[in-house]
Amino acid sequence: MDYLSYDEVACIEKAADDVGALKRVVGSRTVTWINVNGLADIALIEAIGKLFNLHQLALEDVINVHQRPKVEEYDEQLFIVTRMLPEPTSKETEQVSMFLGKGYVVTFQERPGDVFEPVRQRLRRDGGQIRKLGADYLVYALLDAVIDGYFPVLERRGEEVEHLEDLVVSKPREALLSVIHETKRDLLDLRRAVWPQREMLSALMRQDGGFIEERTKVYLRDCYDHVVQLIDIIETYREICSGLVETYLSSLSNRMNEIMKVLTIMATVFIPLSFIAGLYGMNFDPKASPWNMPELGWKYGYPFALGLMIAVAAGLLWSFWWRGWFGGSDEGE
Amino acid sequence: MDYLSYDEVACIEKAADDVGALKRVVGSRTVTWINVNGLADIALIEAIGKLFNLHQLALEDVINVHQRPKVEEYDEQLFIVTRMLPEPTSKETEQVSMFLGKGYVVTFQERPGDVFEPVRQRLRRDGGQIRKLGADYLVYALLDAVIDGYFPVLERRGEEVEHLEDLVVSKPREALLSVIHETKRDLLDLRRAVWPQREMLSALMRQDGGFIEERTKVYLRDCYDHVVQLIDIIETYREICSGLVETYLSSLSNRMNEIMKVLTIMATVFIPLSFIAGLYGMNFDPKASPWNMPELGWKYGYPFALGLMIAVAAGLLWSFWWRGWFGGSDEGE
Amino acid sequence: MDYLSYDEVACIEKAADDVGALKRVVGSRTVTWINVNGLADIALIEAIGKLFNLHQLALEDVINVHQRPKVEEYDEQLFIVTRMLPEPTSKETEQVSMFLGKGYVVTFQERPGDVFEPVRQRLRRDGGQIRKLGADYLVYALLDAVIDGYFPVLERRGEEVEHLEDLVVSKPREALLSVIHETKRDLLDLRRAVWPQREMLSALMRQDGGFIEERTKVYLRDCYDHVVQLIDIIETYREICSGLVETYLSSLSNRMNEIMKVLTIMATVFIPLSFIAGLYGMNFDPKASPWNMPELGWKYGYPFALGLMIAVAAGLLWSFWWRGWFGGSDEGE
Amino acid sequence: MDYLSYDEVACIEKAADDVGALKRVVGSRTVTWINVNGLADIALIEAIGKLFNLHQLALEDVINVHQRPKVEEYDEQLFIVTRMLPEPTSKETEQVSMFLGKGYVVTFQERPGDVFEPVRQRLRRDGGQIRKLGADYLVYALLDAVIDGYFPVLERRGEEVEHLEDLVVSKPREALLSVIHETKRDLLDLRRAVWPQREMLSALMRQDGGFIEERTKVYLRDCYDHVVQLIDIIETYREICSGLVETYLSSLSNRMNEIMKVLTIMATVFIPLSFIAGLYGMNFDPKASPWNMPELGWKYGYPFALGLMIAVAAGLLWSFWWRGWFGGSDEGE
Amino acid sequence: MDYLSYDEVACIEKAADDVGALKRVVGSRTVTWINVNGLADIALIEAIGKLFNLHQLALEDVINVHQRPKVEEYDEQLFIVTRMLPEPTSKETEQVSMFLGKGYVVTFQERPGDVFEPVRQRLRRDGGQIRKLGADYLVYALLDAVIDGYFPVLERRGEEVEHLEDLVVSKPREALLSVIHETKRDLLDLRRAVWPQREMLSALMRQDGGFIEERTKVYLRDCYDHVVQLIDIIETYREICSGLVETYLSSLSNRMNEIMKVLTIMATVFIPLSFIAGLYGMNFDPKASPWNMPELGWKYGYPFALGLMIAVAAGLLWSFWWRGWFGGSDEGE
Repeated sequence: MDYLSYDEVACIEKAADDVGALKRVVGSRTVTWINVNGLADIALIEAIGKLFNLHQLALEDVINVHQRPKVEEYDEQLFIVTRMLPEPTSKETEQVSMFLGKGYVVTFQERPGDVFEPVRQRLRRDGGQIRKLGADYLVYALLDAVIDGYFPVLERRGEEVEHLEDLVVSKPREALLSVIHETKRDLLDLRRAVWPQREMLSALMRQDGGFIEERTKVYLRDCYDHVVQLIDIIETYREICSGLVETYLSSLSNRMNEIMKVLTIMATVFIPLSFIAGLYGMNFDPKASPWNMPELGWKYGYPFALGLMIAVAAGLLWSFWWRGWFGGSDEGE
Repeated sequence: MDYLSYDEVACIEKAADDVGALKRVVGSRTVTWINVNGLADIALIEAIGKLFNLHQLALEDVINVHQRPKVEEYDEQLFIVTRMLPEPTSKETEQVSMFLGKGYVVTFQERPGDVFEPVRQRLRRDGGQIRKLGADYLVYALLDAVIDGYFPVLERRGEEVEHLEDLVVSKPREALLSVIHETKRDLLDLRRAVWPQREMLSALMRQDGGFIEERTKVYLRDCYDHVVQLIDIIETYREICSGLVETYLSSLSNRMNEIMKVLTIMATVFIPLSFIAGLYGMNFDPKASPWNMPELGWKYGYPFALGLMIAVAAGLLWSFWWRGWFGGSDEGE
Repeated sequence: MDYLSYDEVACIEKAADDVGALKRVVGSRTVTWINVNGLADIALIEAIGKLFNLHQLALEDVINVHQRPKVEEYDEQLFIVTRMLPEPTSKETEQVSMFLGKGYVVTFQERPGDVFEPVRQRLRRDGGQIRKLGADYLVYALLDAVIDGYFPVLERRGEEVEHLEDLVVSKPREALLSVIHETKRDLLDLRRAVWPQREMLSALMRQDGGFIEERTKVYLRDCYDHVVQLIDIIETYREICSGLVETYLSSLSNRMNEIMKVLTIMATVFIPLSFIAGLYGMNFDPKASPWNMPELGWKYGYPFALGLMIAVAAGLLWSFWWRGWFGGSDEGE
Repeated sequence: MDYLSYDEVACIEKAADDVGALKRVVGSRTVTWINVNGLADIALIEAIGKLFNLHQLALEDVINVHQRPKVEEYDEQLFIVTRMLPEPTSKETEQVSMFLGKGYVVTFQERPGDVFEPVRQRLRRDGGQIRKLGADYLVYALLDAVIDGYFPVLERRGEEVEHLEDLVVSKPREALLSVIHETKRDLLDLRRAVWPQREMLSALMRQDGGFIEERTKVYLRDCYDHVVQLIDIIETYREICSGLVETYLSSLSNRMNEIMKVLTIMATVFIPLSFIAGLYGMNFDPKASPWNMPELGWKYGYPFALGLMIAVAAGLLWSFWWRGWFGGSDEGE
Repeated sequence: MDYLSYDEVACIEKAADDVGALKRVVGSRTVTWINVNGLADIALIEAIGKLFNLHQLALEDVINVHQRPKVEEYDEQLFIVTRMLPEPTSKETEQVSMFLGKGYVVTFQERPGDVFEPVRQRLRRDGGQIRKLGADYLVYALLDAVIDGYFPVLERRGEEVEHLEDLVVSKPREALLSVIHETKRDLLDLRRAVWPQREMLSALMRQDGGFIEERTKVYLRDCYDHVVQLIDIIETYREICSGLVETYLSSLSNRMNEIMKVLTIMATVFIPLSFIAGLYGMNFDPKASPWNMPELGWKYGYPFALGLMIAVAAGLLWSFWWRGWFGGSDEGE
């Protein structure tokens, strides 16, 4: 647990050991931000809950980290749950729970490591706007940082999707389908994390219990716009992924077509040739009658047979060429 | 039929024989919870209906166990229908009907066996919060137990879906498609049972007839969140199942491709070889003319023919390798 | 045309010849229910319209039997259109038009034969609740009978769908697809008949023109629940039908796979054997050189060739077995 | 341009040459209906616009004939755009723009030829209801005529769809797919023309600027019902068309199956026979050893070989019969 | 940066160097339109922001050019974001940000080059309506120009889609699928740019902060209609593209069918012929017994064999003709 207590004049930052220390801090400056990293120390959470008079149900939601983003109004606090992607490489979201009260903000994170560093920098800097404004603006700044943290992750997803597009066309293989479905599921997870943030922000903007000042709502509207943009991007990627499945399946059909063409060309060219060879392999006795395979005794019998074969093969190949079955490199794979 | 009558001081639990006994109990303590297991004893249900002045239509809904979860306001009671999965292995939901009146809750279950044991434990324990609060909180506790009972079932479904995913990729067989469709239908059933609970809870939260205290609505909101989470999970599983059908169909296509490849390779390699063999099986008479199959009389005629065959086969195999038709284990099954 | 005039004391039932008789009946008892079977007698309908001062547009809707279920408020009546399945085997719905006025209900049916017999029974019975209540309750009872008439029809559809499921897996044939599409269309028709009934009932429940008493709205709510249940069932069946098409198509693919496997096994096993046979059918002259097909003169030449063939065939079959191509009964059809 | 000026007493109908004449007509009788056929004469349109003080934007919409049906309220008029199918064979809708003012209706059509003839007939007839009512009723009558004009067109589309259904099953050919898609697009066009009419009528019914009397709204509600019916029918046809594509594709698969079956039967029956023939065509020297093809010297060697072939062929055919590959007429095409 | 300051009397147009000059201009005439081309000069944007007291968040949105179209109300301005297609060949939209204040409009464009030239022309012309009206009308004129700029682009897309339709039927090749998906994505992009403009315009029409006069709202309604029309067209093209994928896939299946037919005809005709040839190539010894291949010694043995072959081939070809396998040009490609 650490806290950051600030007003326009100064900003004090400390790692606190016990909750007792907090009592003295809160109220000494305009805003105090208490941040708890990790949810293992139940006793600490209980103590903070008692100090700030937090509702039991809200504390349960803090510990139970599968909450959807939401905002709930209690008597003394606004309870906000959001989901954060702590790093550009994160696959799973982490729950961040916030309590906004008069002059303080308490945040609980699942694990150390967050996207709030830029906010801390702005708080430490003298003369920044954030130092002049209240706890509700701090909550906005934190939510904004959470939302901004989604963009680099989505950018990576976008690159993956583009890479998949290349692969599906150039090297269609079954494993790709699993990758596409996995990507779709990742996008589905992101969507489930982002959609409710939209409702949450819209609820914050409609909030009229005095926790959020009008001035701050303009900023929340901006944040809301970003979430809508996120949703737009996610939906686009999902549509592209659906198109990829179609492309993959048609690419399979194309391959089958090509294989069939090779088989058909080979088989249909050689089948008549083999038949001719078989024909002259028959054992009818030329001596028994002049009608019995006189070709066998012709002077140019063999060259005639070979010529016949070449003519048939050429005719068939020409007919395939005429049907446009060659040029496989253009139309096939 | 058994009942549980409690206030902050004590909790009396009894199996009641006749409705007459109930008359004396209700009102003696703050809250009385009457629970009826099984709906066969119509006379009993009628008697309870008369005692508490329950509406005829509501009683019909109690007996007719295909109701969707809902809440209906009558003059003296709130009538709530919910659907419970009594065990983690349950496939079908069981209807639970509740009447919330002043100082009492009456519940009707289809069969003995329910998810309410934890609630009973909390009621029996002295000093618990539940003993201090009214009948509306008891209804919340029961609904919460019902909703919590869905999570283990869904977890099992999730494991099944994951198992199906493995099977579809490793051992695609037609029977799988039926299993996938069955799983989809199970999820559809769950969805049909869960969706209306959302509306039901939201109606309870909006309820302003005095049956539900404001204090309890905070708890119902929590319950509502859980239902939304349930719906989220169910929808995700349904999307995954749809993806599985696609994977299965493409896996069929892949297999066909592999079969076609084997056929094509075998056929196209051997067809020219057979042709060559057929060629030298022709019976043109070498004695009739020097042009007639002089190869037959060559010293190395046979080795030459064999060499020609090996060259052709090697050439074809090389061309298939070049097309990437081998490596079936990577791209095929 | 027949009518049923009743109050708590008595119930008079008669087939009326002319509209004049009606004038004397209406008002004599609390409620009069006039039922017209068949719409051929335009004059009669006009006369009734004049007697009760029905709006021209409503009468046109009565005759024009393709109306969607709806409720419309006129000055002196509520005009209700619903669609009835007169028998469990009916394929098409029949329009029932009702006018609810002060002390009377007029119903028009397309054809004789309806689902209202149980309502008539209840009206004839002394002391039933229905006899004590007003015309609005009669309308509820009629609508309830109409809705209940859908359930047996849907049950039949459900059995058909299950039968189709069995057939698609056991005997996939093209005719099935038409049957599936027909079933889907039947369900679509039902859906089009049922969906608007929901809106119609919800409009009746919101109705505040004095036609419907508050007491009756509780009953309409019950009726509304049944319609929602109907919609639920229909949607489930439609989803199952969509799954059946998928199963059918994949079953076609499976059959193709099996055919291809048989062809491939036969062809690839015999092609090399035929090649060997062709090889030793070549006519190279063993006398010309010792290199020319010495096998032909070997003592065990023929058994050697046969052995070679058996070995090749066994090797190929083993390789197919190893790929899991046998066991067609499990994986194929 | 022509006009129809009427009240309960008389109905004057004339083709007007110049706008000046209109000035004297409007106001002389209760309602004047001015109809402009064709939009080429911009000056005329401008003059009418000036005479009735029509808004510039509305006039632009009149000329720009790609408007969606809509209703817009201006100070002195209600501006209504609808789309008409002038004939049962029409493929494309024609824009009809109407201005409803106090005592007059101005309509603009793209081309001569409309569905308003029945309305004119009713206006010319003495004593009809339409002559007694105001300009708003005339607008209703015109809109009703427009909507009724869609039904015969849809009936034709319905017949086309049914014809397509027959063809897809009996003679599947690629050209059908284009026809199906074209039909779908036509339905899409109809849908785009009809959907907004629904909103337009609902806006007219909610209209409270004094242009539409309450009495007329009952009639508009009837018109609205017809539009909803139209939408219902269109959506049904669209669903059927989607089913047709599925049927067509499965019919292609079926044909492929049949072709494959013929190939497989022919190939697998003859391949073993050819192998046997090839076997006894080998040239092993029976004189070299008694092991070398003694069959060639048997007395019944040839009949034995033929018998073997017949036995093999019969066995294979029986196995295909047992697999149900014959009976192609039932299961195949 | 350049500005256009005008009232009914005059219109002054100038390229301004510094913001100082603007101070003197604004307010001197009824409306001043300041247009900034390119967003590289941050200092300039900041200076303008300070001059007009623009909100910091709005300025950030101006620079951050991935905003969705929207309208936001600030104390002194209405902030409008729209997306423009500057040329009929543009593939990507460009963000245009507008501030509407009392007597001035400030617009920011990403790049030089826009669709506003016609608006400038109208402003320069004396006596035009636009010169008489306020800044809100100018904003309408600009938005209208932006919307109108979409139509030529969509027309091009429409031509592309039609061209694709031709190609898919006449020359199906895999590359087409990518083109179709690309077109779909382009349409998706357009949709994402156009949809929010609808909400934006509808928000402008509902705007009651005094920035937009009632008179102007009539014009915005017209603009709104155009956007709805755009959305209609885009959705239609998207539906057509989805149909194209289906057509393409079925065209692939058709080709496969044709290839299979060629193979099957060739193989099944020649396989029996080869068998007959093989039959008479057997070496059974006619001398050993009269049963051993007496045909070989017949006088017309060879012609008999050839005749048998011709008969078989003719029979098979007839059976294929009877199945309708010829006429490939009609049914196949």
